Amino acid sequence: MNAFTFYSPTLFAFGEGAEQQTGELVRRFGGHRVLLVYGGGSVKRNGAYDAVTESLRASGIPWDELGGVQPNPKSGLVYEGIELFRKTNADFLLAIGGGSSIDTAKAIGFGAPYGGDFWDIFTGKAPLSACMPVGVVLTIAAAGSEGSNSCVITQEAGNMKWGSPKSDLIRPRFAVLNPRYTCTLPAFQTACGAVDMFSHICERYFSNTPDVALTDRLCEALLKTVLDAAPRAIASPGDMAARSDLMWTSTLAHNNSVGVGRDQDWASHQIEHELSAFYDCAHGAGLAVVTPAWMEYVMGHDVARFARFAVNVFGAEMDYANPERTAREGVRRLRTFFHALGMPATLAELGGDEKDIPDMIAHRREKPNGFPFGNFVKIDPDGMEAILRLCVK
Amino acid sequence: MNAFTFYSPTLFAFGEGAEQQTGELVRRFGGHRVLLVYGGGSVKRNGAYDAVTESLRASGIPWDELGGVQPNPKSGLVYEGIELFRKTNADFLLAIGGGSSIDTAKAIGFGAPYGGDFWDIFTGKAPLSACMPVGVVLTIAAAGSEGSNSCVITQEAGNMKWGSPKSDLIRPRFAVLNPRYTCTLPAFQTACGAVDMFSHICERYFSNTPDVALTDRLCEALLKTVLDAAPRAIASPGDMAARSDLMWTSTLAHNNSVGVGRDQDWASHQIEHELSAFYDCAHGAGLAVVTPAWMEYVMGHDVARFARFAVNVFGAEMDYANPERTAREGVRRLRTFFHALGMPATLAELGGDEKDIPDMIAHRREKPNGFPFGNFVKIDPDGMEAILRLCVK
Repeated sequence: MNAFTFYSPTLFAFGEGAEQQTGELVRRFGGHRVLLVYGGGSVKRNGAYDAVTESLRASGIPWDELGGVQPNPKSGLVYEGIELFRKTNADFLLAIGGGSSIDTAKAIGFGAPYGGDFWDIFTGKAPLSACMPVGVVLTIAAAGSEGSNSCVITQEAGNMKWGSPKSDLIRPRFAVLNPRYTCTLPAFQTACGAVDMFSHICERYFSNTPDVALTDRLCEALLKTVLDAAPRAIASPGDMAARSDLMWTSTLAHNNSVGVGRDQDWASHQIEHELSAFYDCAHGAGLAVVTPAWMEYVMGHDVARFARFAVNVFGAEMDYANPERTAREGVRRLRTFFHALGMPATLAELGGDEKDIPDMIAHRREKPNGFPFGNFVKIDPDGMEAILRLCVK
Repeated sequence: MNAFTFYSPTLFAFGEGAEQQTGELVRRFGGHRVLLVYGGGSVKRNGAYDAVTESLRASGIPWDELGGVQPNPKSGLVYEGIELFRKTNADFLLAIGGGSSIDTAKAIGFGAPYGGDFWDIFTGKAPLSACMPVGVVLTIAAAGSEGSNSCVITQEAGNMKWGSPKSDLIRPRFAVLNPRYTCTLPAFQTACGAVDMFSHICERYFSNTPDVALTDRLCEALLKTVLDAAPRAIASPGDMAARSDLMWTSTLAHNNSVGVGRDQDWASHQIEHELSAFYDCAHGAGLAVVTPAWMEYVMGHDVARFARFAVNVFGAEMDYANPERTAREGVRRLRTFFHALGMPATLAELGGDEKDIPDMIAHRREKPNGFPFGNFVKIDPDGMEAILRLCVK
């Protein structure tokens, strides 16, 4: 196990009616005037917007609004939000929705106190040294941004989908988690969320760090929960047991509870960021295509770990005489699982095209520290090409 | 899953050399003058005391000292500490050691700002409404107090071993966890710690709350880790992989990570508190005697859960035709596990005597809300007697 620091000072209020605490929580964490950040109509249709604004009103907290956040959230709305946050003298950001709204709020949070272009903090030109407080009312179980120390924004000038520096400063002060609001999500979005959290755990699970028995088991506990709960939530959208398990798993999958003390990989996420940048595909759908391909490409590096994954997560029988057969069976079952959730399996199903592969590699090359990436196996341009070719078949 | 609030704003600094951050962490969390709280010579022999005071000196933080904390920490030292804390104008408590030092520091922490007798907060005469900040340098993996929201003190007048009210106010601001300091613990103390953390997880695992698949799996992941790591740590005291797993498990077992959203039991702990009050036995040793007896007494309430425990934690084979046989096999394996760690199995081995059973029940009766206790099964005086009789054989 590596040395680590774990600091997750987010208050999680989980369960039916938890959103009624929103106003009180904003006050508790020092907010007097709020900028609400949300996407489109879904938070209005599912009642979350009404419940949250009613709670703010009851606590006497005034607010302004920034709606219109899109999936793969864009820099344009961050610039707009920073201006609005300053103009309205707000002192607290409150995101209603999923990862896109939360990440937009976080970027406004550290962009507002910075004098220059907020993108400087992504490029490393400026440090992430201050962040206005962010609260969350979660309505999508997926990205885990409600508990995480990072955010991802797409800079439209340059079409760069980049992660911010990791910093405990941008962990939300509180997150209200009422699984009821996820019951009205379309099956496709539910599935994308399940893939996203599954991938967040895999990025931590596939590690070269020795002596990580405890976090290995915690990762497997979360992976099995996704495997169990996601099909139930899709078959019966109102299944609150499944929705609850998925929502809390999404948070634990990405607040680093199960990743402490381990080198982490993140190559699949890096490749998916290029797919999203090129095709604006749903992040989870992109990960459903990339993750099994990445696994096939790197499996030879640690067959024993992939065999363990097959046995402990997917219940495959161990072939002690031929562990590679077991390892391959795990990836086969993962593909079957994603497919059964209705996720795309190939670049074409994602709306992509094999001919763009060289351009995606070239685009990745423009990023500072573009190559190699990943830790379990270092991915160079040839590796990235090989993984993307495995997404074609 | 029940609604819940989870708020664990403790910064955990884990790994070799983490104690060198102590002074800096005290400053970060607002401390200017420290009261050090510790036990006897072990923190001086193992180097923790020197490393911590060197770090305080390097950060320019003055301190005073309260040594002499005993296992099953007593009220006398808390009164003394409150006086010393006030007299020295300290503003930060720093515990070096295990649960006894931490719990003493916590009780001083909420006793100092209160005008009256700190025990009023245990009896409910006064609310726990403020606590001075507490930091921890952990040298024993056991009680989990480094991340928990409670503490246990024995009031010498009345010989009452009672838990404080649970409050996020008393969670430590930071905890420094260097497993190296646990390598010099005697085998008996290592084993007591393993039993204590195992029990903290069981108190959460044995629950009547439906739809808790995720936290069930997380509990099992921790239980299996204790099962795997404790014998290795005892066989090879310097095994840092085993020591690391045990130390982080002790924290996760009791910061409520794996207990959220579930009714919890705590009957075994309540009975053990009487054993400790009567015989001043080690808490873990008392739990090793009580826990299997409690399991035998309550098993009929939910045979399926005990069968699951046997299969998922101890790797027993499920007897589908006779689940009770599997359930019993789990408890048999638990007894074998505790015995192999060198723990007592009976009241006599603990230094107790069957003839005291009526007095222990009478003593429990004097406690406000003395009976019934426990949630998985409500324990009345007859139940407590039956469980204690099961500790005799």
